[in-house]
Amino acid sequence: MRQLLSTTLKLTRLFKTHDPIGIRLSSQWGTKKKHRKVVLAIHSEMVDPAIEVQLAPLRERVKQQGDLVRQLKQESAPDLDVKKAVVELKARKKVLEDAELSLTPSHQTFDRAKMEDLLKRRFFYDQSFAIYGGITGQYDFGPMGCALKANMIQHWRQFFVLREQMLEVDCSILTPEPVLKASGHVERFADLMTKDVKTGECFRLDHLIKAHLEKIASEKNATKELKDECEDITVKLDGMNADQMAEILTKFNMKSPISGNDLTPPIEFNLMFATQIGPTGLIKGFLRPETAQGIFVNFKRLLEFNQGRLPFAAAQIGNSFRNEISPRSGLLRVREFTMCEIEHFCDSKEHPKFESVKDTALLLYSANNQEQGKSAETMTIGDAVAKGIVNNETLGYFMARIHMYLLDVGIKPDKLRFRQHMSNEMAHYACDCWDAECLSSYGWVECVGCADRSAYDLTQHAKATGVRLAAEKKLPAPKDIEITEAVPQRAAIGKLFKKDAKMINDTLAAFDEDQIKDLKKALDESQAYVLKTASGEFKLTSEMVSVRTSQKTVHVEEIVPSVIEPSFGIGRIMYCALEQNFKVRDEQRTYFSLPQLVAPIKCAVLPLSGNAEFQSFVKTLSNALTRVDVSHKVDDSSGSIGRRYARTDELGVPYAVTIDFDTLTVPHTVTLRERDEMSQLRLPVDDLAQVVKDLSSGSVKWKDMQQKYPKFEQQENPKAN
Amino acid sequence: MRQLLSTTLKLTRLFKTHDPIGIRLSSQWGTKKKHRKVVLAIHSEMVDPAIEVQLAPLRERVKQQGDLVRQLKQESAPDLDVKKAVVELKARKKVLEDAELSLTPSHQTFDRAKMEDLLKRRFFYDQSFAIYGGITGQYDFGPMGCALKANMIQHWRQFFVLREQMLEVDCSILTPEPVLKASGHVERFADLMTKDVKTGECFRLDHLIKAHLEKIASEKNATKELKDECEDITVKLDGMNADQMAEILTKFNMKSPISGNDLTPPIEFNLMFATQIGPTGLIKGFLRPETAQGIFVNFKRLLEFNQGRLPFAAAQIGNSFRNEISPRSGLLRVREFTMCEIEHFCDSKEHPKFESVKDTALLLYSANNQEQGKSAETMTIGDAVAKGIVNNETLGYFMARIHMYLLDVGIKPDKLRFRQHMSNEMAHYACDCWDAECLSSYGWVECVGCADRSAYDLTQHAKATGVRLAAEKKLPAPKDIEITEAVPQRAAIGKLFKKDAKMINDTLAAFDEDQIKDLKKALDESQAYVLKTASGEFKLTSEMVSVRTSQKTVHVEEIVPSVIEPSFGIGRIMYCALEQNFKVRDEQRTYFSLPQLVAPIKCAVLPLSGNAEFQSFVKTLSNALTRVDVSHKVDDSSGSIGRRYARTDELGVPYAVTIDFDTLTVPHTVTLRERDEMSQLRLPVDDLAQVVKDLSSGSVKWKDMQQKYPKFEQQENPKAN
Repeated sequence: MRQLLSTTLKLTRLFKTHDPIGIRLSSQWGTKKKHRKVVLAIHSEMVDPAIEVQLAPLRERVKQQGDLVRQLKQESAPDLDVKKAVVELKARKKVLEDAELSLTPSHQTFDRAKMEDLLKRRFFYDQSFAIYGGITGQYDFGPMGCALKANMIQHWRQFFVLREQMLEVDCSILTPEPVLKASGHVERFADLMTKDVKTGECFRLDHLIKAHLEKIASEKNATKELKDECEDITVKLDGMNADQMAEILTKFNMKSPISGNDLTPPIEFNLMFATQIGPTGLIKGFLRPETAQGIFVNFKRLLEFNQGRLPFAAAQIGNSFRNEISPRSGLLRVREFTMCEIEHFCDSKEHPKFESVKDTALLLYSANNQEQGKSAETMTIGDAVAKGIVNNETLGYFMARIHMYLLDVGIKPDKLRFRQHMSNEMAHYACDCWDAECLSSYGWVECVGCADRSAYDLTQHAKATGVRLAAEKKLPAPKDIEITEAVPQRAAIGKLFKKDAKMINDTLAAFDEDQIKDLKKALDESQAYVLKTASGEFKLTSEMVSVRTSQKTVHVEEIVPSVIEPSFGIGRIMYCALEQNFKVRDEQRTYFSLPQLVAPIKCAVLPLSGNAEFQSFVKTLSNALTRVDVSHKVDDSSGSIGRRYARTDELGVPYAVTIDFDTLTVPHTVTLRERDEMSQLRLPVDDLAQVVKDLSSGSVKWKDMQQKYPKFEQQENPKAN
Repeated sequence: MRQLLSTTLKLTRLFKTHDPIGIRLSSQWGTKKKHRKVVLAIHSEMVDPAIEVQLAPLRERVKQQGDLVRQLKQESAPDLDVKKAVVELKARKKVLEDAELSLTPSHQTFDRAKMEDLLKRRFFYDQSFAIYGGITGQYDFGPMGCALKANMIQHWRQFFVLREQMLEVDCSILTPEPVLKASGHVERFADLMTKDVKTGECFRLDHLIKAHLEKIASEKNATKELKDECEDITVKLDGMNADQMAEILTKFNMKSPISGNDLTPPIEFNLMFATQIGPTGLIKGFLRPETAQGIFVNFKRLLEFNQGRLPFAAAQIGNSFRNEISPRSGLLRVREFTMCEIEHFCDSKEHPKFESVKDTALLLYSANNQEQGKSAETMTIGDAVAKGIVNNETLGYFMARIHMYLLDVGIKPDKLRFRQHMSNEMAHYACDCWDAECLSSYGWVECVGCADRSAYDLTQHAKATGVRLAAEKKLPAPKDIEITEAVPQRAAIGKLFKKDAKMINDTLAAFDEDQIKDLKKALDESQAYVLKTASGEFKLTSEMVSVRTSQKTVHVEEIVPSVIEPSFGIGRIMYCALEQNFKVRDEQRTYFSLPQLVAPIKCAVLPLSGNAEFQSFVKTLSNALTRVDVSHKVDDSSGSIGRRYARTDELGVPYAVTIDFDTLTVPHTVTLRERDEMSQLRLPVDDLAQVVKDLSSGSVKWKDMQQKYPKFEQQENPKAN
């Protein structure tokens, strides 16, 4: 069977959260229209009854299809029929969700062009290598974007690694091929594309088809039937395989939209960047497409570091790389990006700290609700686990922690939901998977994946290397068990296979039950067995290996731990936080209302004018802020104070201190202004640094300071220069 | 002329610190013997007179050659003669330096094998992908290494970026070819290798020659002449070009040391990892070999962010990649590594904060002292700048700051020196360059480069792109000047070159004086000029472009700023800090005496035994430490308290708190132990977290706490279990 397409930036290893030979079809993006100006909706719980009437038939259509899928599965219908029904279910869900978003009363109007202008103008981030013409899907973070990102990462490290005593690692980016063969990336981490047969120009196949269909459907003479057909194909595109897309290419006689030339049939394009390690050209490597594999291949060392005990969590912060065919949507789909990943290895899914988070209320969009055409609902994570909606405490614990982290960095609770993967999206070995999605002008964006992935990855690497990746657990009492094992005849193997002998012996020793069964069958039937390893195939005869069953008293049991994997896409979270905190004042003054915790810098120091006497106070304040490690920026450029406040607002700076003529007289005082309220206080120069530090760290609130220090009333005049 | 070889991991862009077509010959490593057990020397100022007698003739030999080089230069002797003399000078310097290191009385005996065992056993770092057989030159950092590295980077950001209000950026790793063509890396970032003609196995040429010569020199029947010749070649190897090495290959009839097969002539191997960006295979890219270029290509945006004003400094923390032919020396020469780089853009080399650092004493190894066979000398940076030993205040300011940073993270002042590049090592455009070198068992290791690089990089990128990379500075008074400029006839150029016209016009507009001179000459002589750009060559006739000289009144002058570049190799600093802080107690208990600031974790929490009553105190203390963000580790494994102290010492944990039976009674108290002194205090449970926080941040000292809390006397017994 042909694989399905991955059209999403795989923050989590999405292709593994599908069935073993499939890649999850996903993505809010793939087929989302680009609005320049869009209305942001709040979640559907707040929808009014009149709108519910309009949505009811759409909900009913989803429910019917959901019921059909369920029925087909109960009847064990052919796999192909189930898949078809699921594609239709997703198509109907998408229509419902689009309608929900467009009908819901808007909270606010968001102007993406205005925000993008600000981001570019104040160099939060911008296209890389622009003076050389630039490359799509690559961005450089300027001082403000870089500081925001660094603050988000620093908080992530505090919030997850330090508070939970996780084992943080920092692994290589360049990864040799066998590692990514075992993980499945070499074979399956691909998107479909088509090439102009003459110029060689490449197009991502689903993008091309969608654009073509939109064009013909919008033509004047397009019939209702044609329009409906185009709409239907577009909605189902995410779920189509190469053959189905090839059919559509042919049916509509699609050509290159640039040159009009013919196009090749669909080509699978692996999304990993390939390179060669060392000078021989013989060691093929890839830039890692995710950081997780670095943790798995170090499992043994980490377990040992943890003195052999489960559970423990490992974490990694680092860059990953994906060679997107045609990146779009700004920071949401890029070729290199920073991930923060956790792998929590455990033998039991209870969590000792679950009690401490159980009252956290989350907006949950369960698989069941999706299949039944219902909306997301708010409930406590305690209830969700108790009702079995979320599979277990550990998964629930991480979901609650993810929720808290996202709020800390500026995501709004009413624009954050956890969407459960439907059973068809999940791999056979995963038992539950929830994505934290943030609402943006591009729709709901998957920002954090949180999956219960069972023992898949460790098992794959153990198979590929012959190294046992398991923990030992002491049994309450010794136990007699029957053991079936592969017994290599070391002498015979050594004689024939020489330097490969050790690896062969190790691989045989790591055989699981199924492999031993296969081995026994092969030896019984043909007195030989072909051992397949990363270094080639080896024919073993019954002189070299046998299968033995024996009784044994064991004191420990071997456990290949389950893995719960929260996986954060920092760039996506950052983009959504910027969007959700983008504000406009007086119809034109734009700014970012980012939380102090992550604001790029905490304080601006502004002398009222170029008066020379102000300079020594600028220096004193800057030194005092530096001493208490408060990041700040001196703006002594010309321009009215109002204009300079507007400038610091644009950078998301929460506090601004102004040195004016009153500062020069004893007692020396300055004004302190808060960004969102624009209210001002007057306080002694000597207090300033500590007050800003306490405000920035959240240990005191602005309103506390308003109690303590007198209000300062002078009018801001943003229009004066 | 053939290029010289770079045999060093280029922390700084060393190849640019040589002449424009050369690559600096450098490296302490290239030819350093690997000792398993070596004696670490202190710097030569402390050398005793008896040893000085032995060194005197060696110093004299260096001085004679240094004088010769100087004389040749004064006489403007042929370039080749100067180069030859310099190679000899370096060889003599190396003999002197080796003698200094081996004769100097040792501070301590360092056992590298013992330290490497500890690093591996407690997973500070280890080879990447070891379960797959591993790849040389790639390392994964485990929890302790990762935390140490993160702490070093965090301090770097505080110490440089925040305190100096630098503009930090975070740029793409994947870099398109034209960028690295302009910077010179595509053409010149290469090492020489040779291949086995049959198996294709690759060898770094200098390593191969050295190993071969060592082997034949050690053979029984080797004559004194042969031995001397081998020694002589080995010492000069760093300075040889491809032809010279080819000659040696032939002369000694060298074969592959593995197979005995013939070898190819020298091959230049570019050290950058190549890949393709996007699916077409047409956009060639490289993994960046340094982070600096990301800053240069963003110069315009950064200048604008700084409101058009000089000076300002930009900084970047990130990974770089070099495809070493055969990496060695552990963390000192690796294929991917983290750099912290600063580019300080300025028009004047005075520094407003120089006053604040001028009394900092540094160990300086000036070019003059090197050429005269003298030792390094300690002097204040104020004196060094005043005497012209260090070229300017800004360079001096950064050297002092680098010095302070290195001491903060654990480098010992007597194992740290600043070595100046000799004039022959420097590019024509650089006016001064100093490397901070740390002493390790591999010799003096270049850990931070600090170069005054003038306007080279910006000029290169401006030439390649036609984009002006310059700042404007207001003149004190308007000035009449004569301007000679290239005047494109836009209509004519547009007609012929269409889409390239804009780029051609921009390139002409960015022409510097020399280019305009060339243009004028070409137009005068042949009425045509061939414009060479990254996108190809364009023939321009005198109908399309002319040269005009005119008078103009200007109010601003255009400045291409100079760049001072401090460039830190974090992995190298970390390795040297580990070595310099590696200690052995009682002849066998090894530990790292790392400063609290960077110690991987700050505190261990140890219940005396498995007694259930201790558990609630463990939890209370762990929560309290978490609340004040002190990283810690609970070790409730079995094993005597002494053994567990030894384990925390191995991890470099500075403080350990023990819960014992006295903890259970009111008032609840615990013991607190300091790693280096092994002294202990008894203090209330409620005080503990804040005390450890204050100790870790350095705001209080251990001896202050010894005043405040009673001593705890119980004997440690490390041998009991």
